[in-house]
Amino acid sequence: MQNLLARSLKYQDGKLYVLDQYLLPHEQHWHLCNSVSEMQELILSLKVRGAPLIGLAATLLVAHLAEQGVSQTELAQAIDELEATRPTAVNLMHCMNQMREALKQTAFVDALVTAAERLFNEDIVLCDAMAKLGAELVKPGEQILTHCNTGALATAGVGTALGVIYHAHQQHGDIHVWVDETRPLLQGGRLTAFELESWQIPYTLICDNMAASLMAAGKVDKIFVGADRIAANGDFANKVGTYNLAVLAHFHGVEFYVVAPTTTLDVDCPDGQHIPIEQRAAAEIKGVSGSFGDCQWAPNNAQVFNPAFDVTPAKLVTGWVLNTGVYDQTQVAAGALKNL
Amino acid sequence: MQNLLARSLKYQDGKLYVLDQYLLPHEQHWHLCNSVSEMQELILSLKVRGAPLIGLAATLLVAHLAEQGVSQTELAQAIDELEATRPTAVNLMHCMNQMREALKQTAFVDALVTAAERLFNEDIVLCDAMAKLGAELVKPGEQILTHCNTGALATAGVGTALGVIYHAHQQHGDIHVWVDETRPLLQGGRLTAFELESWQIPYTLICDNMAASLMAAGKVDKIFVGADRIAANGDFANKVGTYNLAVLAHFHGVEFYVVAPTTTLDVDCPDGQHIPIEQRAAAEIKGVSGSFGDCQWAPNNAQVFNPAFDVTPAKLVTGWVLNTGVYDQTQVAAGALKNL
Repeated sequence: MQNLLARSLKYQDGKLYVLDQYLLPHEQHWHLCNSVSEMQELILSLKVRGAPLIGLAATLLVAHLAEQGVSQTELAQAIDELEATRPTAVNLMHCMNQMREALKQTAFVDALVTAAERLFNEDIVLCDAMAKLGAELVKPGEQILTHCNTGALATAGVGTALGVIYHAHQQHGDIHVWVDETRPLLQGGRLTAFELESWQIPYTLICDNMAASLMAAGKVDKIFVGADRIAANGDFANKVGTYNLAVLAHFHGVEFYVVAPTTTLDVDCPDGQHIPIEQRAAAEIKGVSGSFGDCQWAPNNAQVFNPAFDVTPAKLVTGWVLNTGVYDQTQVAAGALKNL
Repeated sequence: MQNLLARSLKYQDGKLYVLDQYLLPHEQHWHLCNSVSEMQELILSLKVRGAPLIGLAATLLVAHLAEQGVSQTELAQAIDELEATRPTAVNLMHCMNQMREALKQTAFVDALVTAAERLFNEDIVLCDAMAKLGAELVKPGEQILTHCNTGALATAGVGTALGVIYHAHQQHGDIHVWVDETRPLLQGGRLTAFELESWQIPYTLICDNMAASLMAAGKVDKIFVGADRIAANGDFANKVGTYNLAVLAHFHGVEFYVVAPTTTLDVDCPDGQHIPIEQRAAAEIKGVSGSFGDCQWAPNNAQVFNPAFDVTPAKLVTGWVLNTGVYDQTQVAAGALKNL
């Protein structure tokens, strides 16, 4: 397989590495990854995260294993096991389906490698297309709010929602970003803050519950978020807290955009109610944990509710920024997402 | 002064003690408090917190200083300094005004002590009245959501919003409470969880950004929150994140109640825009800190926005549960709060 280099995933000189996003921003550590069980642990622990990135990391691993001589039967099993690692983001399923098709070829090693290279490079192109289309929606001087992390760390390219912000800043210079910290796993406070700082884009970090008063004060012009799965009717799942923002945006008349590649579309999923939502460990809610330290403030016996994602209904979305174009409610209601 | 014993404040055998709420729930430590500067530090660092409790703690200190022979001039200065400690909650101003009146008496020591005892005991009675009136709104089997901490820790009595929940549980048994963790200072995750556990009331802890999906799923029947100041038109300030919940409740058709004693009313404040909102330190947003440990995950240079409170407009409130009765929008719009 050719060398493939992204911000948080790289295949170099026959070895597969992933950047540990759990340790960011305090430490930049690359894990060498050689097995399905290693990759599953990396994904489950959110060391590898971001809907597009999870799919690509699993894809490169399958191609890498094929090149190392792993049998067709074992590769089929590897694809199944990787696909089952996290249930909500559809990019992983999409990637594994592509690899499953390639595995059917007689020259399956070449086919898997070619598919992996194509999916990786395609993601970069998709990111650029979304970023350019989305940036056209942003006016100079605007204040943009975003949630979770959807930048170069989460994709092979410049990102989805954060890619839009990056491009808008490249064009206009004077935009300002409000960053939701994104409890419980703090992808905003840790990762988006880190990426914006490295890009020298002015930002202000807030707790998730502060976005409402910013909107009431007229300090948010537009909201851009990513997606883990977009259903055929335009409903979408994204990091928990996204639906909260969508309701707030609707109430305050703030434009609310979801930014995702067409690989995040699941046309077989009719609506948001059919998207499975992953529940995660109680410890994530009882405290925080990372390279920055570990704290638990809640009582040991506390019951918790910890959905990793929530579902935003299409009726709350101003526009769907895909690599193929920006779609409004009327277009989506007419089935625009079903034939992309 | 007579002995006055509350959950987090006590005057016993001539000494004033406050429970350190920063150390809760991991440690129960009482501070002996003998001076204005000590009390200011305790309040500013949120070791003493809760709108009613801050007012009462300052009040008991003034009476205590008077009994120790502090001069009338110095007491006047103490009252002014204590009043200026935190700007949003009006209970502190209300209490200090009462003490200022008492200080005008010739027998000012007796007058201050009498006023302090009255304010302390009155708060217990006010809590009971609110709790009973609010509990009548709750039906058996309902799921209640609350924010921040408004229980026995925050008052001299059973609490405001959490007092309602306590009474409803006493009556019905089978209620369930969703507890917002309440970033940044985690009063929900630390203090409300702790109080509900000690009262054996079933609860589930969530991150603030998860309330929206609970409401969408029909899992929240009613919301009860406290207040730091209620303006004459019914707008009110409370812990940041309250306005977020009010918008969500409005969108989902969930009943939203604010619970506060008449001492939280500020009839001289026409509306929410006139309530000063305290901005707090950046460190609170960049990480967490407490007896449970210290962590910082955000970049050192991160700009933050850290309002301690937000303002909920009257139009989003289903009912105002005061010690004098439950008032609806029509009554409040007709000026019901102005003559209590």
